[in-house]
This record gives sequence, C-alpha cells and structure tokens, in this order.
Amino acid sequence: MTGINFRNVDITGGFWKKKQDMLKETTVYAVYERFKETHRFDALKCQWTEGEPDMPHIFWDSDVAKWIEGVAYLLEKGKYPELKKIADEAIDLIIKNSDENGYFNSHFLVTRQDKRFTLRNEHELYCAGHLIEAAVAYYKATGEDRFLKAMCKFADYIEKCFKTEKTAAFVTPGHPELELALVKLYEATGERRYFELAEYFIDEHGKGHAGDADTFAPWGNLLYNQDDIPLKNRTTVNGHSVRALYLFSGAADVARLRGDKELTEACKRVFDNTVNRRMYVTGGVGSSHMGEAFTVDFDLPNRKAYTETCAAIALVLFASRMQLLETDSKYADCIERVLYNGLLSGISMSGDSFFYENPLEIDPDFNEVNTSQTYNERFPITQRKRVFDCSCCPPNLVRFIPSVADYIYGCDKNTLYIHQYMSCVAKVDGMTVEQTTDYPHSGKVSIRCNTEGRRIAIRIPWWCKEFNIDSPYVIEKGYAVIEAGATEINVDFGMPVNIIRANRRVHDNAGRVAVMRGPVVYCAEGVDNGRDIKNIRIDTSAKVEVRDSQFILPSLHTTAYHLKESDSLYSVAGEDLESLPLTLIPYYAFANRGTTEMYVWLLEK
Amino acid sequence: MTGINFRNVDITGGFWKKKQDMLKETTVYAVYERFKETHRFDALKCQWTEGEPDMPHIFWDSDVAKWIEGVAYLLEKGKYPELKKIADEAIDLIIKNSDENGYFNSHFLVTRQDKRFTLRNEHELYCAGHLIEAAVAYYKATGEDRFLKAMCKFADYIEKCFKTEKTAAFVTPGHPELELALVKLYEATGERRYFELAEYFIDEHGKGHAGDADTFAPWGNLLYNQDDIPLKNRTTVNGHSVRALYLFSGAADVARLRGDKELTEACKRVFDNTVNRRMYVTGGVGSSHMGEAFTVDFDLPNRKAYTETCAAIALVLFASRMQLLETDSKYADCIERVLYNGLLSGISMSGDSFFYENPLEIDPDFNEVNTSQTYNERFPITQRKRVFDCSCCPPNLVRFIPSVADYIYGCDKNTLYIHQYMSCVAKVDGMTVEQTTDYPHSGKVSIRCNTEGRRIAIRIPWWCKEFNIDSPYVIEKGYAVIEAGATEINVDFGMPVNIIRANRRVHDNAGRVAVMRGPVVYCAEGVDNGRDIKNIRIDTSAKVEVRDSQFILPSLHTTAYHLKESDSLYSVAGEDLESLPLTLIPYYAFANRGTTEMYVWLLEK
Repeated sequence: MTGINFRNVDITGGFWKKKQDMLKETTVYAVYERFKETHRFDALKCQWTEGEPDMPHIFWDSDVAKWIEGVAYLLEKGKYPELKKIADEAIDLIIKNSDENGYFNSHFLVTRQDKRFTLRNEHELYCAGHLIEAAVAYYKATGEDRFLKAMCKFADYIEKCFKTEKTAAFVTPGHPELELALVKLYEATGERRYFELAEYFIDEHGKGHAGDADTFAPWGNLLYNQDDIPLKNRTTVNGHSVRALYLFSGAADVARLRGDKELTEACKRVFDNTVNRRMYVTGGVGSSHMGEAFTVDFDLPNRKAYTETCAAIALVLFASRMQLLETDSKYADCIERVLYNGLLSGISMSGDSFFYENPLEIDPDFNEVNTSQTYNERFPITQRKRVFDCSCCPPNLVRFIPSVADYIYGCDKNTLYIHQYMSCVAKVDGMTVEQTTDYPHSGKVSIRCNTEGRRIAIRIPWWCKEFNIDSPYVIEKGYAVIEAGATEINVDFGMPVNIIRANRRVHDNAGRVAVMRGPVVYCAEGVDNGRDIKNIRIDTSAKVEVRDSQFILPSLHTTAYHLKESDSLYSVAGEDLESLPLTLIPYYAFANRGTTEMYVWLLEK
Repeated sequence: MTGINFRNVDITGGFWKKKQDMLKETTVYAVYERFKETHRFDALKCQWTEGEPDMPHIFWDSDVAKWIEGVAYLLEKGKYPELKKIADEAIDLIIKNSDENGYFNSHFLVTRQDKRFTLRNEHELYCAGHLIEAAVAYYKATGEDRFLKAMCKFADYIEKCFKTEKTAAFVTPGHPELELALVKLYEATGERRYFELAEYFIDEHGKGHAGDADTFAPWGNLLYNQDDIPLKNRTTVNGHSVRALYLFSGAADVARLRGDKELTEACKRVFDNTVNRRMYVTGGVGSSHMGEAFTVDFDLPNRKAYTETCAAIALVLFASRMQLLETDSKYADCIERVLYNGLLSGISMSGDSFFYENPLEIDPDFNEVNTSQTYNERFPITQRKRVFDCSCCPPNLVRFIPSVADYIYGCDKNTLYIHQYMSCVAKVDGMTVEQTTDYPHSGKVSIRCNTEGRRIAIRIPWWCKEFNIDSPYVIEKGYAVIEAGATEINVDFGMPVNIIRANRRVHDNAGRVAVMRGPVVYCAEGVDNGRDIKNIRIDTSAKVEVRDSQFILPSLHTTAYHLKESDSLYSVAGEDLESLPLTLIPYYAFANRGTTEMYVWLLEK
C-alpha cells in the first residue's frame, strides 16, 4: 500500500476543518511569537557570544524547523505572505550561517565549535533531521530549492563524518529523527545515498553504541536508548517514548523500502506491544516522567501519565508507516484513537496554549503533597502553557495539523483504502474521492468516487459493533471491501456511547470504565461535577443524553452515584450512596476552564 | 485518669500472651544477635578510631537503649540471667565511657568530640532520651541504680548546656524523644527539674529554632520539624511522623502535669487531625517516604504508604497520654486499631524479622517500574528484614510488646476503665481485676473484680454495633459504665465481620472497602488469591466463613468476582466478570509466605 499525500487532499469541512482553521488563524502565529520572544529565531543569526543571556539551546533549531515545516504545509493550500517572509528570513540565516561543510547548528556553532559531533545526546542530529524535513516541505510547497540544496550539503557532510570517514565520536543519533528525514530527503531528491545513510543508522542502532561518547546517566543507558539489543530482535517498546517511536518509524521506512522481513516483524512486535500493553485509552504513550519513558506492560498510571504530545504524534508517524507494511485496520484504529484524544489534548480550544504532558487524571487538592515544604511528589501541570523551555510539542502540532489529511487514504493497485473519515476531496492519479460527513459528530459518511477500477475498502472502527453500508461488501482485515465500480456509497457507523474496560492487568483502572462516543474519549471535570470525582460511580445502565457543547463535539449527560460526605475517616458501610447528574466532555477539551479535577476512568457502580 | 502500669498486670493467656512468648523466646535474642553482628554493642566501648570500618552511627545508642529497656521489662516478669548479663555489660560500658560531665554518645565521643551539642539533627538528644528511658526501666525492674544515677548526671549536664547556661548551639531536640524520657525520669526520681527541662523543650518547640544550627535541607525545614508555629497553636499533624508524635506525646505529658488547657486543646486538635484525616485503616501513619512524613488531609496512598512501625508505636504513646487528659473511648479505639494492625505487621509471625514501612498494598509486578535501568519509582520493600541500617523499629517492638499491658486499664477515684481486652490479672491499690477472654478470636470477655467501690467502665469498640453486657449500664464517652459493686461481668461484643468504607475524600480508596473482623483488618494475598487482586471485586452481601488459620486469628472466606483474562487492552464492556473464592488473612500476617500481591482495600462489586 502507498499513502495518499495531504497535498492531494483538501479538507472541506467538519471537525478537522475547524482545527485547521484554528491552526492557521491562531496557533502558527502564537507559536511564532513565543519563539521570537524566547530568541529562538534570533539564534539563527549565530551572533551570540559568551556572557550574553539567552544562549541558543541545543533543541532550538528543531523548534524553528518544525515551525517552518508547518508554514510550508500551509503554503501548499493557500497564500500566507507574512508567514512566508518569516520563514524565508529564517531559511536565509540558516543558509548564510552554515559553514563550508554545510554544517548548521545554532548552538554548537556559537558555543562549542570544538564539540561538533562528539556528544551523542546533545540533539545535533535531531536538529539536522528537522531542518531536512523542513527543507523538503519548503521545496515541495514553493518549488524554491535553496534550502533543500543547503540541507543536502549538510546531509552529505553527515554521511561523510558518520558513515564514510567515521570521524564523528559517536555512531547513531542520540535522539532519533534524522532517520525519517533522510528517507524523506531520498524520496524528494531520488538520491539513494540518503536512504542508505538512514539504513546505516537503523542497522547500527541496537548495537550498544549509546554509551560510546557520553556515559552521563541516563542518556548513556542502553534501554533508554533502545540500544540494548539489535532492532530486528526487539519485542517490546522501551525507553524514551518519542525516541523509541521516531526510531521505529524510521525502521518501518527502511523495512519497507528494502523489503526486510525480519525488521518488518520486529516493527510489528513493537507496534503490538505498544498498543496492546503500553498505550493509554487516549492513545497517549510514555507512562513515566522518569526518562519520559515507557515502563513495563500494563503500567498505565493516570495521574502521573507522561504521555507527551510529541509521543502521540510519534505514534501516528509509526502507525501510518506500519499500515504501508501491512494491511490491517488496527493501524488506522490506532491513528484515530490518537488523533481525537491524546494528540489533540495537547492544544487548547483557543489554539494558543499547549500541554507537553497529557495526564488522564488531575486531582489538584493532592497535586501539592506538601510534606515538609521541601519534598513534593511530581505530577503533570494542570493548565496548558504558551511555551516551554523544552518546547518541542507546540511546533510539532504546527506541522501536524495542516498535514492531517496524510492519514485519510491509502491505495494499492487493486484497492483504495479509506482509513479516516473527514469531509474532503482527494484527486490523485486520475482518481477522485469525495467524503461528505460531520464525523465524529455523527457516524454518517457519504462517499462519491471514481477509483479507476479499484475496490473501495472502508475501515470499520474497532468501537463500532453495528454499522450500515448501502453497497455489498466483504470484511477483510477490518475493512469493508466493496467491489470496483461503486460511485456513491453511504455508510453509517452510528456514533455509539461505549463503556470501555481496561484489561484486568491494568491495575490503575481496576473497577473503572472509560466512556467513549465513537472514537472520542470523554472525561469528567470538577467544574461540571464537583469534587471527589474519583469516588463518583457511573451507572453504566443509565440513559446517556447527548447535547451540543462549546467543545465542537457534544457533551454527555447521565446519572452517577456518590458516597455521601461524612466526618468519619472510616465507617461501617451502610446506605451511604446518593445520586447525582454526571456531565462528561471530550477528553481533548479538558483544562480549558481553569484548574479543576479531571478523570477519564470512572468508578463503575 | 491515671494509667495502670504493666508492672501491676500479668497477661495470662490469649493473643498477646502468644506475642509476648514469641518476643521473649525469639525476638529479643534475634535483635541482639543482629545488633552484635553490626557492632552496635561494640560501639559502647568507645574504641573506634578513624580509618576503621563500622564507625558508630549517630542512632546506634538508641538502638541498644531500646533493647535494654525491653530486657528490663522482661525482667519485671521473670528471670533472664543471660539477657541481664548482656544488658549489664552494656550498661557498664555506658557508665565507664561517660565523660566527667556525664555525657555519653558512642558516636560523638569517638568521631566528633568538638561537635558535641552543635548539630541539632544528629540525634544526640534522641539517643540521650532512649538511654534515660532504659535507665528508668532498668532501675524499676532490678532496683539497681547505677545506670539511673549516670543518666541523671547526663540529664543534669543537658539541663546546664541547653537551659541554664545555653552553651549548646541549638535549642530543641532535632528528633523529639528526650521530652518523654525526662517526664519518666521526673516520675522515677521525684526531681521536678527534669520535668521543667521537658517543659522548657516543649515550650521552645515551634519557635522556629529548627534552622538554628544546621540549615541542611530538609532537616532544617520548619514544617518537617513541627517548628513553624508554637505547639499550642497547632491544628494539624505535620512533618516527620515519628518526630511529630513523640513530640506531641511529650506535649501531652506536659499539658497534663501542669494543667495547661491551651496545650491540651492543641494536643486534642492534633490527635483528631491525625486519626480523622491522616491515619490509615491499620492505624499506620506517615503517608510519604519523602521526609518519612505526614502529607495533607486524606492523602493516604496504599502502595507507597510509609507507615513506619515506630510511627505506629508513637501513635499509641500519644493516644495513651491523651486518654489521661480526656476520657473518651476514641483514644483506646485508636490504640486497639494500631495494636492489632499497623504495629504488629512490623514483626514476622516467626518473630525474627521486621518491617520498617508497612504498606497497605503490594503489587510486585509493578514494584520495579524499570524505565531505563536508571530510573525507578520507590516503593516499600515486600519482605521483612532481620536488621536495617537505620534499625529503630525492631528494638522499639522489643520494648513495646512486653509492656503492652500498660494500655489495658485506667482509673480515677470513681471509675476503673477497661480500655483493652486481654486475659490478664491486675492487682493495684487494693483492687483486683481479672479478665478471661480469647479476644479478638471471639468477643466474649468475663470480668471478675473487686474495684474498691469504683464503677467499672467497659469500652464499647467503635466497630461494635451490637453487644451484650449482663449488668445494667449507661453509656458515657463510649464506655458502658456499671455501678460499683459488680464482681462478675460478662460481656459479648460479638466479633462481626464489618465492611469498612473510607471517607470519600480518600481518593486512593475510592470504590473500595476494607474487611475487618472486630479490630482486626484483613487483607488478600496473591498466594491465596492469584494475581491482579487489585481488580477483584468483593461481594459484600455474600456469606463470610470464618476458619482457623496458621496466623493465630482466623482467616475469612467469601465470594468475589474478577474480570476475565483478555488479550485486549481496551474493550467494550460486556459479560466479562467471573466469580472466584476469596481468602482473607489478618493484615498483621501479610508477607509471611514470600513476595506476593497484597491488598487491604478491595473493590466493591
């Protein structure tokens, strides 16, 4: 299967049109302003000198690069002269300040020239990867090739230092990302050397290089770096969650492009371990702030969930590559889960503030467990911020949301796959496909198409037990497949409110259920439901009312029970439950009304 | 009310006789052997020199002192020539190596003579307190006064350095304990100066002295030290749990002996805050290992519960002093709760190994949340140890269990109070009282007595809603009061199995119940019930069978439900519960059969 690029797909209305409008009207400017204020754009001038404040940080180039990539994606669909001017100035500074080898890094160039390519964990190659991705995006959007040429030169220099002459002091990227970027650079330029360099990094990863250049714990730790065993032997997803999933996105690219079955099987095992053992119901991943990491199977604490927004994005990148390797609706199911929940929670309804971590439970009264004014437990923040010191997530959304249509379609020579449901028009290779839908407000989708003789495969979402399709179909790998020739298909998935249980091995959700409406996870906030929500018992047999809300998708209203308030700490159980109305809102919309309790997993009465 | 000392009470059979036999046959020797092996007794020779291994630790004198105190309590009731010889040798070394001022500390004398009384948090006065308590106990048991005289001289020197001449570099004990000991020394010698020194320390506490001599965080932190506001203004229990409760035990002594109403009210507030907001159902206290501390109201995490055995003992010390200040059964209820649960869990059924921390939940599969071989969450250990580096708890049990009869009776001029139920004979001031009971195996207690014209007050335990007393009574402050003259009273509290709920503000117990039989908290262990107990739902309406067990008190057997095993991480809820038998054992007996899951709070079906 190949994907159909968002360049060929216009989102015309509905849920994601609203999010794309928010992005282009607010988010892209808000992120720029914060990055300007924090001197991330100034850093590209490479004029910082010792003793000045605001030393360029090792991550900063990647922040700007992701923002430029996002602007390039906007330029694919419209004219934004102001944004293009900012991007052009940044690009010109990057080109001007690249050295004679093509090397650019606004931190190392001005602070530690002598340390170039010696510190595996200082994000030099990570920044390079994002610059390359931005350059590819900018070239495709504008046709202007100066940035692409500059980054090709940089990639050539990396190839020389790491692969050909091996003058670098370490072997593989400390924070994977470059692997993905090199595949994109290969696909944009046709230069197979770039793919081979990606292959080289993927093949060297897992050979225990992580401690080579820098033994500072935990960055030199092998498991943290997914570097304890060769990738082809990997069975579990471990260590830093974003690094792990970017790495396996790169590995899936390499497995596909060189037809590597062993690596493909490893990618499948890692994906299955991720989604069957280590993923939150929101699609968030990374259970612990300690190492920003995956932990062990079924360890999914809700309050301390790290679930970085970038990790959610990384899971989409991985799953979308996996669905090119294997036709199975589980990949698109995973993408849908992430899209409507753990990814979108990373940005406020207003589009200008962000979560780095996306917990599934907020209990503000106990967030400052103040034992001695010295010791505090660590919990995620309860309100979104406009910018972070390590502000990787906001610009990752800036590039993700404009390109979300990347995930809608796939095709092979026989079949057009519809993975995701959004109102959109796609035109590619003589095919035209138009979806008209308000999904996931309702489950009705009308499809009009000319698929050039291909069958149409319609994903049946995992949460949908009853659906209606007005054409004959057979189910294959989770898709309802309709023979070629249909030009209009009407589908109704319903949009059921489902009560979801976690596997009994997930001890943190014991006795609890999550409420989903279609793909959307709901939560209960204190602002609607009062306090001690952790103790509210939902009546799963009660009627659920669906009402329009301020959060695009509806709110849900049902009945629950609460232990009565009491002065006793412990008492013999009696008639101590009282009923109360329960309001649930989409999880992605939590924390838009001030600091308040929030729970996804609710006690079942 | 005054207490009736254990010296006047012989425990003749039943539950506590078994525990006292275990103590005198096993524990006292086991603790001695471990302390000998670890050079704690050798340290008293004061011959260690720089460069040698096993430098005497700042706590070690208190360890040995508590052991001597325990031996003295055994000597009250029998002959133990071998133990007395060991104690005598230790006492002789302490006397011999005390300096010309009477000062003794095996750490400071050999390592840091120049630092004497300069480091508030280095436990010098804490050790002194335990040495004084040991000396009082030894004197009372043997009539030999050399240790008592030596410790009086030491106390005189402390008075001079801290109160009269104020040459010490700090004001109040960093780890309270000396305050209690000075009251005991006053009561043993009649020297009011010792009480006045206790008063001085209590009155100075809360004036912000904690940071005086040593600002090393967190030991210099005021809240950790209960030193942020004057004790008489205190409304909550804060900071290091053992320090807080030893301090308030001393404060309660001072309040009683000088008739201080303001301080009495503060003690009541702190007690109520402890038991109504910050105490586990087991009577354990101290919610966090961070600072070994109380945290905030209703913060009672089960798996990370610190609940140090010494803090359980300290709560008994505090509650027993409070019941001298105010007649209310809540104090004896608290003592009973601690005795049968969070205190006794500190020692193995075999009597030779110990818990420092007493969690209410053990989940071994998730105890090593290994994110990167570098980062781990911290959880209490899952098996008892024979000795700890900081081994305060084992000798605290050595002194506590032989003197447990201290808590059975109280009296004033009108009334004899029976706080606790144990088979025992008490003879004091012409009164004789004999209890015959197998409590808490059953709730039947027979009392034969001659109380010299006093009424008899029988505590009705908080968990007992139906009881039978074969004499007329009126209820006063939680006691059934029977007019003077009764010589034989038969009581039956039943021994109901109760389903206990926590206040809804205790989020960690949401949806969960604890099972108690009378005063005894029960738990479910994996060795009996398989894994994922966190997900087992108890049917609180099902019949409970009571069977004899290997753990002195019976085990309980009932029906529960479990989510079926599943391959799915998340699934739409359906008919996915199956029934299984559930076995519960007394909480105090957990972790006697290897590492296994353990839960006190169980989901309610």
